[in-house]
Amino acid sequence: MPILGQNQYGKAENRVVKITRDGATHHIKDLNVSVSLSGDMDEVHYSGSNANVLPTDTTKNTVYAFAKEHGIESAEQFGIHLARHFVTSQPAIHRARIRIEEYAWERIEHSGEGAHSFVRQGRETRLTQITYDGSAWEVVSGLKDLVVMNSTDSEFWGYVKDKYTTLPEAHDRILATQVSARWRFNWSGDEQQMPDWEKSYEQVRKHMLQAFAETYSLSLQQTLYRMGARIIDNRSEIDEVRFSLPNKHHFLVDLEPFGLKNATADGAVYFAADRPYGLIEATVLRDGREAKIPADLTNL
Amino acid sequence: MPILGQNQYGKAENRVVKITRDGATHHIKDLNVSVSLSGDMDEVHYSGSNANVLPTDTTKNTVYAFAKEHGIESAEQFGIHLARHFVTSQPAIHRARIRIEEYAWERIEHSGEGAHSFVRQGRETRLTQITYDGSAWEVVSGLKDLVVMNSTDSEFWGYVKDKYTTLPEAHDRILATQVSARWRFNWSGDEQQMPDWEKSYEQVRKHMLQAFAETYSLSLQQTLYRMGARIIDNRSEIDEVRFSLPNKHHFLVDLEPFGLKNATADGAVYFAADRPYGLIEATVLRDGREAKIPADLTNL
Amino acid sequence: MPILGQNQYGKAENRVVKITRDGATHHIKDLNVSVSLSGDMDEVHYSGSNANVLPTDTTKNTVYAFAKEHGIESAEQFGIHLARHFVTSQPAIHRARIRIEEYAWERIEHSGEGAHSFVRQGRETRLTQITYDGSAWEVVSGLKDLVVMNSTDSEFWGYVKDKYTTLPEAHDRILATQVSARWRFNWSGDEQQMPDWEKSYEQVRKHMLQAFAETYSLSLQQTLYRMGARIIDNRSEIDEVRFSLPNKHHFLVDLEPFGLKNATADGAVYFAADRPYGLIEATVLRDGREAKIPADLTNL
Amino acid sequence: MPILGQNQYGKAENRVVKITRDGATHHIKDLNVSVSLSGDMDEVHYSGSNANVLPTDTTKNTVYAFAKEHGIESAEQFGIHLARHFVTSQPAIHRARIRIEEYAWERIEHSGEGAHSFVRQGRETRLTQITYDGSAWEVVSGLKDLVVMNSTDSEFWGYVKDKYTTLPEAHDRILATQVSARWRFNWSGDEQQMPDWEKSYEQVRKHMLQAFAETYSLSLQQTLYRMGARIIDNRSEIDEVRFSLPNKHHFLVDLEPFGLKNATADGAVYFAADRPYGLIEATVLRDGREAKIPADLTNL
Repeated sequence: MPILGQNQYGKAENRVVKITRDGATHHIKDLNVSVSLSGDMDEVHYSGSNANVLPTDTTKNTVYAFAKEHGIESAEQFGIHLARHFVTSQPAIHRARIRIEEYAWERIEHSGEGAHSFVRQGRETRLTQITYDGSAWEVVSGLKDLVVMNSTDSEFWGYVKDKYTTLPEAHDRILATQVSARWRFNWSGDEQQMPDWEKSYEQVRKHMLQAFAETYSLSLQQTLYRMGARIIDNRSEIDEVRFSLPNKHHFLVDLEPFGLKNATADGAVYFAADRPYGLIEATVLRDGREAKIPADLTNL
Repeated sequence: MPILGQNQYGKAENRVVKITRDGATHHIKDLNVSVSLSGDMDEVHYSGSNANVLPTDTTKNTVYAFAKEHGIESAEQFGIHLARHFVTSQPAIHRARIRIEEYAWERIEHSGEGAHSFVRQGRETRLTQITYDGSAWEVVSGLKDLVVMNSTDSEFWGYVKDKYTTLPEAHDRILATQVSARWRFNWSGDEQQMPDWEKSYEQVRKHMLQAFAETYSLSLQQTLYRMGARIIDNRSEIDEVRFSLPNKHHFLVDLEPFGLKNATADGAVYFAADRPYGLIEATVLRDGREAKIPADLTNL
Repeated sequence: MPILGQNQYGKAENRVVKITRDGATHHIKDLNVSVSLSGDMDEVHYSGSNANVLPTDTTKNTVYAFAKEHGIESAEQFGIHLARHFVTSQPAIHRARIRIEEYAWERIEHSGEGAHSFVRQGRETRLTQITYDGSAWEVVSGLKDLVVMNSTDSEFWGYVKDKYTTLPEAHDRILATQVSARWRFNWSGDEQQMPDWEKSYEQVRKHMLQAFAETYSLSLQQTLYRMGARIIDNRSEIDEVRFSLPNKHHFLVDLEPFGLKNATADGAVYFAADRPYGLIEATVLRDGREAKIPADLTNL
Repeated sequence: MPILGQNQYGKAENRVVKITRDGATHHIKDLNVSVSLSGDMDEVHYSGSNANVLPTDTTKNTVYAFAKEHGIESAEQFGIHLARHFVTSQPAIHRARIRIEEYAWERIEHSGEGAHSFVRQGRETRLTQITYDGSAWEVVSGLKDLVVMNSTDSEFWGYVKDKYTTLPEAHDRILATQVSARWRFNWSGDEQQMPDWEKSYEQVRKHMLQAFAETYSLSLQQTLYRMGARIIDNRSEIDEVRFSLPNKHHFLVDLEPFGLKNATADGAVYFAADRPYGLIEATVLRDGREAKIPADLTNL
């Protein structure tokens, strides 16, 4: 008889918005929360007995109730509350994984009363994933869809040439990518020693952007490494970073047929291509620590 | 024999990025340009004769060549150049319509040399459409995907109740929408009297956001009208505005089964719903002028 | 004071699934219904008074209640019921427009009992739009996302060449497009003379596909005309067809650098490009009738 | 100094269409091919030296050249050719992973000459992933976006109830899901003993659909297990199957306020919800074999 392997279940993409009122000044947290539980679940697969199954509908209710009862200080802290709850309150649940997307809003400046008007920042989506098995905690945060470009200070040459190689070497090109990144905290689970999750996110983002901007790049791999190393070197709470960086190609358009010189040095016109694209993925690790983020990054 | 009605053709979604260098400081324009031409095109439909057809590939080449030759001062000006070119240089082309999406970038702050590093602003997409028939010009600009929210100062009551009405009246609710707007300029085509397209866009956006924030709303229709009226009242270059405003519903979650009070006045927890959604669409017009923007807004 | 122009409102994208049981054999209708109403709506825009406003929530309830009360014979008939209801039952509503997307399912063949298992056909989405103003009816049906390809019997040459033309002429190319089509019925509103909407759809689709396949094409415009003419010539219930046909370019890959001949005549390798793409749009009309479908097709 | 962990690079989403001509009868293969290579890549990350880097552009060229030189018998065989080429021809490349999406087309029936007209089947997307490290092969195939529904023969009751549980038990509900599945072959790399990849796919798909249709379901987990077990029991070439099954909720609409009974037994009206959704994921394994497919399925 075929046997059951790894399995997990829960309610995905619970869209929860929490407004906090401080007089006429309101604050907003806007999350997309996915719950995934594992444990003694053989029977529900083999016979359909739900005796060990907490319904996914209940996990949804729990997300909304916790948002009211405990508030949402940060996505990370909210995920920690939820993960602990499921593992400690349900005997058959041995592991909980909470994934959260967070959408950022900024205030609309205006001359009316109150401060309860917001415009959504369209920039990157912030991510976190909390995993708890009753003893060990793993917190991996990250972001996706952060699009960056250097319009110069990028080269690509000196590569291997085989019979299928036609690419000319480049000594001044656009380097653009849509950053997807995940970073793993070394937090042990000690409530007294919790990182400042909000500050950590802003600092990681800043270091990542600055390393991208300040690296004179000979390859996107080199830029990737510098971005990861900058984080590891500056943020002691983080042991590991993984990137998935599509090389968003900007091709210099050939305008010679029209009697026009289109040279990088003068400011040039580029075709921004969709597909195919180079895809560069790598992990950067604090020396002596073990890598745990999977090779394939997931959206949520 | 069936006859040919309105027809148009061209190359859609030409992705053009123009870098301008001012020493070590670079500037960027990032556009998605769609060309659509009409004229004496009966034969290509009836017999397949291409004798009057300028290939769509040529229209693509023209976009890239013009970006180099003339630069891109604004999306509107670039579209005007292109539209005039096609209508005046091709005897069989009697109307050109240029649609442009523009993506905004901001500079990455860093301590390195140069100013050629950018991060894409994810906020709304800016739009323009230029139409020229050899004599009259029509410039319609706009935006899409500007997501805004008031976390209070919105009510909805006093509506019609028929046998299918179950909605309870609301005296304090979230009002959120994803603005899609188009506004038509009254520019006559006089090169000496061209609006400052960049400033106009920033001002229209500002007025729209402020009107949204400052309106105590009894219905989304009322908010829509105030947003449009604010633009007409403040921007003399604009005669007409049309909005398509999905009502992004945020439902108060019922937490009573869990012994929790979830009242708006205390700061509450909401479920952000996907579908269905209310959809409110209307035109606001300068008194005495004619409406020309079609009822259905298109993306590009 | 700025004045109000054309306006409409309603609940969009009501996802309704209706199961009909005929013993152990079930039937399914899977629709996405959008309601849009117009009428005496000045006050709600100017002052926020909802006295004439039937809530969008009520229009949603009506969709679900009608699906139960009247069933769903076809998307067209269901839309006619709904449009008539809103206009005749609400004094302030003078026009109703119902848009419907329909998703198709086919039965899963198996050896178990019953016939209540389905797999969704991923092919095109069927569309319809019903508009009623209390006296006149307009029914426009259509489809989107029907992707077709001829791997030969397509040429493109003899076109205009200006200074920006570099495209070589083609005497054997792939012709591929993603059909978006809308067709307008000449139905007067007489219930006794209603077309068989289901049969009409299947026949229009068949004629469209056959005309695409059987046309030796000198331009996509020619193919478009033949597709439209075939429908007009064969379906007397239809007076007008409009197409929006992106030319999904398949470029012959240059393999000469690798010593390989990649010629169409031998069977070739193509790069399927995303953007930009040619876009061909036109209306084909029964002689003597008036065109009413707008130039820009909308999704729903 | 931070150290480099797992890394890989290549060209993603090469869209290749191969036409094969058999007289006037044409055949089509339509693939999206992604190449990912690993090996001695420390230097390109640390110093930017590209001395070991075969450009991603070259990997793209290789995909197109191989499509012409070797043809595309099946996605799996094409991937095996490519993976072997990169590992055996490049000293610095120690592992190649080829991911392929395949889009299916069917012939348009018509009465004209030739057989070179196709309409794309919109149904599920077929997937495969080939990994080769110079000695061991791993072939994992699969599909995504196969949407299925049972309109009865599904129950859900007898589950755990905690303080956040409000869900009523269900004894007759719709069960619908969008199948994402991956299955791993036990092929050793022996060219003489290669499975018939095309037949294997069709048979796996058939067994999966039939098991879904024939299972009277007490939980989606039970249905999942039966789908996997059916494949393992019937296809000796496969050792492991993993599913990710979103529970596409169809909620019975409450029509009592309108005096309508909406009972499952009579055929009912449902609201098809978007988010949130239950998400059920599990592996089913041939007894005695090891699980290797990762818990998070990727699209490509």
